[in-house]
Amino acid sequence: FDIGGTKVLAVVLDENDPRHPRAVRRAPTSADPALIVDTVAGLREELEAAVGDRAVAVGVGIAGLVDREGMLHYSPNIGGVTGFAVGRELEQRLGLPVVVDNDATAATWAEAQAGVAAGHDHVAMVSLGTGIGVGFVLNGRLYRGAHGYAGESGHMVVDRNGPRHLTGARGPWELFASGTAFGVLAREAAAAGRAPSLVRRADGAEITDTHIDDAVAAGEPDMLDVVDEFADQVGLGIADLVHVLDPGVIVIGGGLVCLGDALIGPMGRATPRHVVGGEHRPPVPVVAAELGAEAAAIGAALLADDR
Amino acid sequence: FDIGGTKVLAVVLDENDPRHPRAVRRAPTSADPALIVDTVAGLREELEAAVGDRAVAVGVGIAGLVDREGMLHYSPNIGGVTGFAVGRELEQRLGLPVVVDNDATAATWAEAQAGVAAGHDHVAMVSLGTGIGVGFVLNGRLYRGAHGYAGESGHMVVDRNGPRHLTGARGPWELFASGTAFGVLAREAAAAGRAPSLVRRADGAEITDTHIDDAVAAGEPDMLDVVDEFADQVGLGIADLVHVLDPGVIVIGGGLVCLGDALIGPMGRATPRHVVGGEHRPPVPVVAAELGAEAAAIGAALLADDR
Repeated sequence: FDIGGTKVLAVVLDENDPRHPRAVRRAPTSADPALIVDTVAGLREELEAAVGDRAVAVGVGIAGLVDREGMLHYSPNIGGVTGFAVGRELEQRLGLPVVVDNDATAATWAEAQAGVAAGHDHVAMVSLGTGIGVGFVLNGRLYRGAHGYAGESGHMVVDRNGPRHLTGARGPWELFASGTAFGVLAREAAAAGRAPSLVRRADGAEITDTHIDDAVAAGEPDMLDVVDEFADQVGLGIADLVHVLDPGVIVIGGGLVCLGDALIGPMGRATPRHVVGGEHRPPVPVVAAELGAEAAAIGAALLADDR
Repeated sequence: FDIGGTKVLAVVLDENDPRHPRAVRRAPTSADPALIVDTVAGLREELEAAVGDRAVAVGVGIAGLVDREGMLHYSPNIGGVTGFAVGRELEQRLGLPVVVDNDATAATWAEAQAGVAAGHDHVAMVSLGTGIGVGFVLNGRLYRGAHGYAGESGHMVVDRNGPRHLTGARGPWELFASGTAFGVLAREAAAAGRAPSLVRRADGAEITDTHIDDAVAAGEPDMLDVVDEFADQVGLGIADLVHVLDPGVIVIGGGLVCLGDALIGPMGRATPRHVVGGEHRPPVPVVAAELGAEAAAIGAALLADDR
């Protein structure tokens, strides 16, 4: 299960082919812990019926500060929920062993085990969504930190005098480089007259994410400038991670990945511009995640399988 | 050996008491690789004579991008030297096995094995000197990264529109939070009339580091304001490391540590102010390194012993 603030995504893992789950289901939910537990229980029944088999263990990826005992201490992305004992409550409800981890951490495990980072010992996966979630495989092992809170890298400050984020912090990376930020940047460019192709597509209506995605996919020159500006912000933070951790590969995840090389290419070119001494070290490959929207759920299932 | 741009420090490790080397020697040197090799060979003879024993292996901590084969690719701190095969050249000259690692990494290993971080599985050590060097122990193991370049965290950008560093990057952490930066901040405060106790101590002459250290040690209220401002800059970057890696302890190293709790206390108080969701997670202890100026040399010796 991949539990977000508005929906839950669930997969049945195929142990012989983790890239392709035996079944996938989604259900809307809310930030209310009781409703989340209901949603998960309902999806479990649906999936068991779909594959004609019984679950033996459950893995959960969830956004926020979740500790090794499956307690979600705080999740800004799930309506600011605090003190939700995800692991214990789901074990009671489902009658199954439940393994809980951060969603970005779970997605990283999936990509390192069965996706684009397979075979790498040092991986940083950067998921661009509402915010930025980061996961790490270091020395060949999933890295969670002392309390399970590693990878909150979207909160790295890159502009200490910059605008305030909803967290109250000034200028954190995710304010400039999340999926949300890309939409903001494109709309600002349109409002400033720098993205006429976008204004044309919207045809007087509000500019949607679809307009933006279409303009990028069509290779509109004005949109490519917006992409370059955004990729530079992403590359600045990736370079911070390179300075700190020297990963062997950077995996980009999240919904934006559907834009493919039009987005990933500029990020790969922007990153070395921000790496100090870059001409004296091998460039770090920046690659798109392969497991798509199901990565966190697949990774959580793999972690449950390894329990 | 701890090899810097202007001096080399050497110790003979006491395996039964790594905190207290059997002998310590220092020698001036330059950024010329041939001179560095000469200096190391000379110190080795001095030390062998001092303890009446023969070396069996040599560990080297050196500032800069050094790979797992002991090749120093680039060191801004050692006169911009590039392509210095430290390990191979020293093995030939000394006729001994030589293990080479980054100096901050070696110091971290010493503190984690025999110093203040003993018993911790997740350690970040932040050495405040000319720049900022960072080392990590993660999941109980020294963490070097894919190429041996982990811990160049002083280059994390915290002020993307800020002043340029000598590396050409705008607003990296070490520009505001290194030992050098502390001196700059104190002198600026004096010039702006905000540090009269410092001006009084200098008595018309140039303000030296000793004047600054003395004013801090004496607890001058105007200097404590400067310390708070500096500690806030250090805490901002430490919080970045907390967001990325969730370490169980932060060790502060470098020459400034001699100022003790007058400096470390404010850093410990500043850090949680910059950690998002800090009220929902345990505060990370910020503690002073214990092994002093010899930490990198001791750590390098321990690594040679483990080879």
